Amino acid sequence: MSRESAHIDALRALATHPAARGLKDDVAVLGDLILTHDMMAEGVHWLPGADPADVAWKLLASNLSDLAAKGAEPLGVLLGQALGGDAAWDAAFVAGLGLALAHFNVPLLGGDTITLPDKSGRVVGMTAIGKATHVPVPARCGARAGDLLWVTGPIGNAGAGLELLRAGTDGGTALKTAHQRPVPLLQEGRALAPLVTAMMDVSDGLLIDAARMADASGLSLAIDLDAVPLSNDFVALRGTDRNARLFAATAGDDYALLFALPLDAVSPVAAHRIGTFATGQGMSLFDADGPVPLPPSLGYQH
Amino acid sequence: MSRESAHIDALRALATHPAARGLKDDVAVLGDLILTHDMMAEGVHWLPGADPADVAWKLLASNLSDLAAKGAEPLGVLLGQALGGDAAWDAAFVAGLGLALAHFNVPLLGGDTITLPDKSGRVVGMTAIGKATHVPVPARCGARAGDLLWVTGPIGNAGAGLELLRAGTDGGTALKTAHQRPVPLLQEGRALAPLVTAMMDVSDGLLIDAARMADASGLSLAIDLDAVPLSNDFVALRGTDRNARLFAATAGDDYALLFALPLDAVSPVAAHRIGTFATGQGMSLFDADGPVPLPPSLGYQH
Repeated sequence: MSRESAHIDALRALATHPAARGLKDDVAVLGDLILTHDMMAEGVHWLPGADPADVAWKLLASNLSDLAAKGAEPLGVLLGQALGGDAAWDAAFVAGLGLALAHFNVPLLGGDTITLPDKSGRVVGMTAIGKATHVPVPARCGARAGDLLWVTGPIGNAGAGLELLRAGTDGGTALKTAHQRPVPLLQEGRALAPLVTAMMDVSDGLLIDAARMADASGLSLAIDLDAVPLSNDFVALRGTDRNARLFAATAGDDYALLFALPLDAVSPVAAHRIGTFATGQGMSLFDADGPVPLPPSLGYQH
Repeated sequence: MSRESAHIDALRALATHPAARGLKDDVAVLGDLILTHDMMAEGVHWLPGADPADVAWKLLASNLSDLAAKGAEPLGVLLGQALGGDAAWDAAFVAGLGLALAHFNVPLLGGDTITLPDKSGRVVGMTAIGKATHVPVPARCGARAGDLLWVTGPIGNAGAGLELLRAGTDGGTALKTAHQRPVPLLQEGRALAPLVTAMMDVSDGLLIDAARMADASGLSLAIDLDAVPLSNDFVALRGTDRNARLFAATAGDDYALLFALPLDAVSPVAAHRIGTFATGQGMSLFDADGPVPLPPSLGYQH
């Protein structure tokens, strides 16, 4: 078990209030209030040299994506910022944050600013507060045997973009942008909330997040790898073979919505049926050639 | 202007929503919901070698103190934790956090855990959510000419305790505890909220926080340094002369409540009248010997 995972397990023992949802739902649900907090660190969540405006965008977008997956309307955010390095970075971050907040029409409500010791990498945290538009608020658990698993697309763009950025490769702008400027699906989440039996956003990787939904729902899940939606840009770069699809399905940072609907339901937003829940436990993959062994890593493991 | 101060000014331009209170009130006030976020970093907010349980306590207490100053009842907290160093520290932190949450009867609702690159100092952040027990929610501004400034006591214990801890001096347990385990005055804040014209907690230093209240209220303020409440432990260690009192009044981390009441009002909680608001601007000090020049630093400057 990773260190983060062990730590979260230890915290879980403290989080016995029902609003905490056992620390298994990315958010806390306090009446019709949705609360979420994400942290990001330099050298871990963003590449050295990344545009501070992109960092600000992603911090906001990843928090809003957690609200989107609960069908919540954002009420505002608090920013926690641990300053380090050069001050020009701070100003670019604030300017970028301002544009991102305006883009999503979300107010900055407060927070805290501290200064780190020399040579420490920057750390930023954000708390987003939202209001549920549908009660009960969708959870990671709740899928039923026979439900289908759906995902909005595309999957894998951010992961492919990150590899291009790491390698310093020219081109691939759309893929890089998917990594740098993810878009939280707030409207889609609100449209889906009354219909889904379970919903979450894809942040750590499609397969690991789908496995978590199946596990939380106490069900098994079979995923058709061929049905995972890929973009034209992704396909042009990496193709559509099994390896390319496995890369897409485990890369993470997609911020797509992953949700379960009854067999006969139709998604009101553009989305793709990629799997089926059944009694039992565990996740399996298949494609046109037959069963696909699970890859060693299903995504980012906390 | 300090880097933090410049950064907060830049953020202030973004925080135009009324709930943000211009980033001048330690909290956001969204209807009857009170939201606050505090960050702490190793080597900045706690001494190397500090007990992780004390760090957890202080993180919770400083957030709850912000709620106390608004008369709010805590609903829960979100924890943001950036892990670093050895894992034994993490376990001790969680154990301490559990005891602190139980002590104040506050639920852990969620949060995020990340892992920092090697050799980075730990960073922790906490968001506290509270419900106002009185509307309008007390603000830092609002004092009126003729109001008296009150403070619960004592002042200076935490600062004196920190110096003992830094020097490795034996004894002074009560003072050290004041630094390590501050107590948020939640009941007192709720009792005061319907009566005060302005209220905040003393975190950066009595003088700087009082000056902020006067400034936010558009008033001048005269403080009687002799009236600043000192504990017997503080007096036994540092005496009661002007220097000792100036140390106490600028050291910070007291988490006392500082509030304004009309001239004829009496505080319903144990507290001390220490100053008078008047028209004009600026803060002045006096004691039995006459005017006291303002010290070069009034407290911790963000």
